[in-house]
Amino acid sequence: MKALRFNAGRLSVEEIPVPKTDSESLVRVTTSGICNTDLEIIRGYAGFNGTIGHEFVGVVEESEDRSDLIGKRVVGEINAGCEECVPCQNGDPRHCPRRTVLGIVGRDGAHAEFLTLPSRNLLEVPANVSDDEAVFAEPLAAAYGITEQVDVLTETRIAVIGDGKLGLLSAMSLAGLSDNVTLIGRHRNKLSIAEAAGVEGVLADQASKSGRRFDVVVEASGSESGFQSAVEIVKPRGKIVLKSTFHGTPSWPASRIVVDEITVVGSRCGRFGPALELLGQKEIEVKRLISEEFPLSRGVEAVENASKTGVLKVLLKMG
Amino acid sequence: MKALRFNAGRLSVEEIPVPKTDSESLVRVTTSGICNTDLEIIRGYAGFNGTIGHEFVGVVEESEDRSDLIGKRVVGEINAGCEECVPCQNGDPRHCPRRTVLGIVGRDGAHAEFLTLPSRNLLEVPANVSDDEAVFAEPLAAAYGITEQVDVLTETRIAVIGDGKLGLLSAMSLAGLSDNVTLIGRHRNKLSIAEAAGVEGVLADQASKSGRRFDVVVEASGSESGFQSAVEIVKPRGKIVLKSTFHGTPSWPASRIVVDEITVVGSRCGRFGPALELLGQKEIEVKRLISEEFPLSRGVEAVENASKTGVLKVLLKMG
Repeated sequence: MKALRFNAGRLSVEEIPVPKTDSESLVRVTTSGICNTDLEIIRGYAGFNGTIGHEFVGVVEESEDRSDLIGKRVVGEINAGCEECVPCQNGDPRHCPRRTVLGIVGRDGAHAEFLTLPSRNLLEVPANVSDDEAVFAEPLAAAYGITEQVDVLTETRIAVIGDGKLGLLSAMSLAGLSDNVTLIGRHRNKLSIAEAAGVEGVLADQASKSGRRFDVVVEASGSESGFQSAVEIVKPRGKIVLKSTFHGTPSWPASRIVVDEITVVGSRCGRFGPALELLGQKEIEVKRLISEEFPLSRGVEAVENASKTGVLKVLLKMG
Repeated sequence: MKALRFNAGRLSVEEIPVPKTDSESLVRVTTSGICNTDLEIIRGYAGFNGTIGHEFVGVVEESEDRSDLIGKRVVGEINAGCEECVPCQNGDPRHCPRRTVLGIVGRDGAHAEFLTLPSRNLLEVPANVSDDEAVFAEPLAAAYGITEQVDVLTETRIAVIGDGKLGLLSAMSLAGLSDNVTLIGRHRNKLSIAEAAGVEGVLADQASKSGRRFDVVVEASGSESGFQSAVEIVKPRGKIVLKSTFHGTPSWPASRIVVDEITVVGSRCGRFGPALELLGQKEIEVKRLISEEFPLSRGVEAVENASKTGVLKVLLKMG
């Protein structure tokens, strides 16, 4: 089968054997999405080698333990836990210290014609959700995962910093819960996508001038300046959600965090169930985030395009 | 009256007029406590000039609006709000943007024979709580304020980093709620004070070796290394409470906070009511934290002593 692989610092589409299932299910991938984490991996993050990619939709071809899944269209939770540690026993393999993560840690990923995952990780896609929508289940789950850690009510004033994919999905999904969601970004055309979902778009250079204060600020720009802005616009006793896995060790104003009793919440993954529900309700037009589609054979070019400024989601088609 | 004042970079005991009450109550201070914030102020923090001190117990001498308070022994919440802004309307002047703070921001403090505060800030001290205990109401409220922001259950595994006054009060007060409180410090004799309250004392150089992970880590050392240790010993999805107002801009591992979904909670003040209740229950022997007592006339010497290594609480007596 074909797979988009990163090895010894080089990205290429290779011909490799279809993976063995062992005790897992075999999924024939139909569509995968390129995420910023993919771009970070090919810059050397986490030292990963193998098939990249973790956003996918596909059809189950083989499953020893869940024959009912065979032929079903599925998406999959990307963290595979050991099933023995405390987080796994509590049903949350996302924090298993021995976890593998699809296309990120110790497990071949989704930019390939086939992948395997534990059957318990797979969720059937509702019939009214197309492949091009379902492939957003993982990033939408991550965006919506904010609501697992922070209470969001109708009146909660929320600012999302960053109008990339994660910022857009965060703002658009939170707008289903709160009537006061503002997206702060640098691109008028991206802001307008969120505005169509009831979000107020504000250009970054205007945001700091307004003097407005927010109950919750979601940092989704992945930049140190984004974090500094978040500290400026959050209200006392407000919450800053760090949604982007940015690297390095930014500095932060300890005294401000303590005196104003601000809470900083790290947030990575979310549950797929609520994300599939959101997609089924059709209230978020995720397809407006798709910039381009490529066949898997042109995967290297697709990744190059995904890293260009202004490009949102790039999809790979396996068909 | 005598007052311990910081002006133009110099600390001295001065003779100044008894303050005018305006619409506030006049309190004759009997005992005050020297806090690390006092020491920071005389290093130039916050640009405060005037009478320092914010931990006190005293007797109400005059009160226009609350004549029932006259003659009563009281402690007082140190934040005086504008009564008009949103936080004030919600009953929390601690985050009023126009607040004054006793001996810290725009208001003469407690190391003096008399002070004034709004009558609504004053709380009567229960008869079974002595002056030397009541003077701990403010720091104990700050320590116990952690429970306003973080859920603490019997089984919650808590580590407190730092065996100074705030660390000891935090560990000792949290031990009334959780059976699993560990105090990490550098001084065997200070750790033993907490151990008498059911806390497990661990020397700092042993703590990182154990590999233990805590649900909640309270950073009360006020040092950057304390924060680094907190990040090391907190479990995934655990909480770090920043309790010390340390200055500067420490760096932090953004990626670790996001990937392990850690929450960092800034925490400054707490409510006095629960602190007075704790003191009345006599479960925390706060008097074990008293290192020395001085008359107000020797206030400068008292502050010098309070800043020495190994010294815990230094009290001033006005009598």
